[in-house]
Amino acid sequence: MSEPTSRFLRACRGLDVDATPVWFMRQAGRSLPEFRALRDKWAFFDVVRSAELTAEVTMQPVRRLGVDAAILFSDIVVPLMAIGVEVEMRPGVGPVFPEPFRTEADLARLRPLEPLDAPYVTDAVKVLVAELDVPLIGFAGAPFTVASYLVEGGPSRTYTRTKALMYGEPDLFRRLLFALADLAVSSLRGQIGAGAAAVQLFDSWAGALAPDDYRTHVLPATRRVFEGLADLDVPRIHYGLGTGLLLGDIAASGADVVGLDFHVHLDEARDVVGGLAVQGNLDPSVCLAPWDVVAGRVDDVLARAGGRPGHVFNLGHGVLPETDPAILRRVVERVHGGR
Amino acid sequence: MSEPTSRFLRACRGLDVDATPVWFMRQAGRSLPEFRALRDKWAFFDVVRSAELTAEVTMQPVRRLGVDAAILFSDIVVPLMAIGVEVEMRPGVGPVFPEPFRTEADLARLRPLEPLDAPYVTDAVKVLVAELDVPLIGFAGAPFTVASYLVEGGPSRTYTRTKALMYGEPDLFRRLLFALADLAVSSLRGQIGAGAAAVQLFDSWAGALAPDDYRTHVLPATRRVFEGLADLDVPRIHYGLGTGLLLGDIAASGADVVGLDFHVHLDEARDVVGGLAVQGNLDPSVCLAPWDVVAGRVDDVLARAGGRPGHVFNLGHGVLPETDPAILRRVVERVHGGR
Repeated sequence: MSEPTSRFLRACRGLDVDATPVWFMRQAGRSLPEFRALRDKWAFFDVVRSAELTAEVTMQPVRRLGVDAAILFSDIVVPLMAIGVEVEMRPGVGPVFPEPFRTEADLARLRPLEPLDAPYVTDAVKVLVAELDVPLIGFAGAPFTVASYLVEGGPSRTYTRTKALMYGEPDLFRRLLFALADLAVSSLRGQIGAGAAAVQLFDSWAGALAPDDYRTHVLPATRRVFEGLADLDVPRIHYGLGTGLLLGDIAASGADVVGLDFHVHLDEARDVVGGLAVQGNLDPSVCLAPWDVVAGRVDDVLARAGGRPGHVFNLGHGVLPETDPAILRRVVERVHGGR
Repeated sequence: MSEPTSRFLRACRGLDVDATPVWFMRQAGRSLPEFRALRDKWAFFDVVRSAELTAEVTMQPVRRLGVDAAILFSDIVVPLMAIGVEVEMRPGVGPVFPEPFRTEADLARLRPLEPLDAPYVTDAVKVLVAELDVPLIGFAGAPFTVASYLVEGGPSRTYTRTKALMYGEPDLFRRLLFALADLAVSSLRGQIGAGAAAVQLFDSWAGALAPDDYRTHVLPATRRVFEGLADLDVPRIHYGLGTGLLLGDIAASGADVVGLDFHVHLDEARDVVGGLAVQGNLDPSVCLAPWDVVAGRVDDVLARAGGRPGHVFNLGHGVLPETDPAILRRVVERVHGGR
């Protein structure tokens, strides 16, 4: 393993840093006026399928906020779209699959992802790596979270069909999750090959599961993703909302960095994940508060991190669209040591 | 405190029982064909505002499932409606407030609840107490969860406006929550006066909060509700989804019974809540699984309860509408010791 020079990559490796690195989940998105202006002209998948637009949107927050890492602008359903699974992005709803996954026959639709299926992704990565002064984080959805959209047919609050499949046909569920794990591995290897310096796996909805179900039915597929990247010299970050009671298992997934949501105290969570680096964990809604409240909460996260190496500052979930980017900029400055 | 004879009330008090008592959150609801038939004829608020229909719907699951307790069929917004706050129940959405709570002036709309504001509630309780062979549980929403609907104007995934108010105007937020606490106390005292033998306070969305915010901004109002009932000889149950990391605080709220969601192991949660009784905590989606899976998971909850007094069996969240009531009936029999 080579020793990196950037703050962000050093923190992911548990190495000493000159200042705590910071980036924000969904830093590229609706909180930025320049993003909204671009999205007024282009549909979501137009952006994703254009290397140029993807690169532009990915760079917007780096320019405006001074963050220490960029993350590829994408969506967890993009690899499925790339292998020909029909998916729509409905405004105010999210990704919708008109033909949800229902039976074993649907496995045939999940063919392997080939490099030429999504050239716009690797092209965007190459453009970004050439232009950026900070590391680029690659992006993929974790098997369970992607499966939940595919099985439900769209976003859900209860994951009823997904869990019914998990309980009723555990072997089929496992094959589905493993196919999605392989898809994530192919996508992330492609991004790393094109120059991504780290990857983040989003298991956003893993927190919907009872702990035993997570361990039995989901963790093996997540582990398969991280194992599939183990030969590559890039930090692997895991993130899931509501996973405070699953952190011990997530620490055993093969991740190098455990993303924390805002329901845990960073110091206590760190005790659970052992020697791994952690990322997080300011409640994104705090960024809607008056500045003195924001500052106090930023300081609390930093105090809990205690100046020990192995902390990447982030929110505990994505930036809310209502957020004022000027506040995010001040958060970055404060994390870096300004006041 | 008198010593109760029913299984359910004895378990709430930590007394020995002949079999573990069981009921299900949302046992009265869309999983029952007789409920759907009634709702085809009557709108939601027609049911709630009729003592006769409320009693009928409340009794349906007792007849069909053989549960050890009934819970008043209602909604957490009913006391607000009763004092004249406009609220609509939108199918597939939930309660919607066309005029959300925004400023201090809105506090004036939250006048105290008087006994004659909602005679249909106490009348329904009286009908039920006369007809039921099992205890009736009274029902109210906790201040934070009710506030979240009132401030957002309806259901939310992020509680953005509610949290922004909490951070930005903490004193106004506190006054709002205390007004809603007083509303809950008045409603629950009315139900108890009419014969309810226990009460459950639903803080369904408290799990959306970071732990420090829960403790600072929400727990005092919850405590105010339970204190307002302390002179009455009925068990007070607290329930919230995603509260596994808040259980220590909830145990200090004045509740006698802590409802557990399905994200915790019942035995571990019990260690956290000390000597209090617990209620829960089967994942409702398990009830959509083949029977052998259901049976195994029911047995696991019972094994974790370990036959110690002070356990009321329940789901870890409400019954899913897709649930087959025949499965719920079998769960009841299994909890009672049948196979």
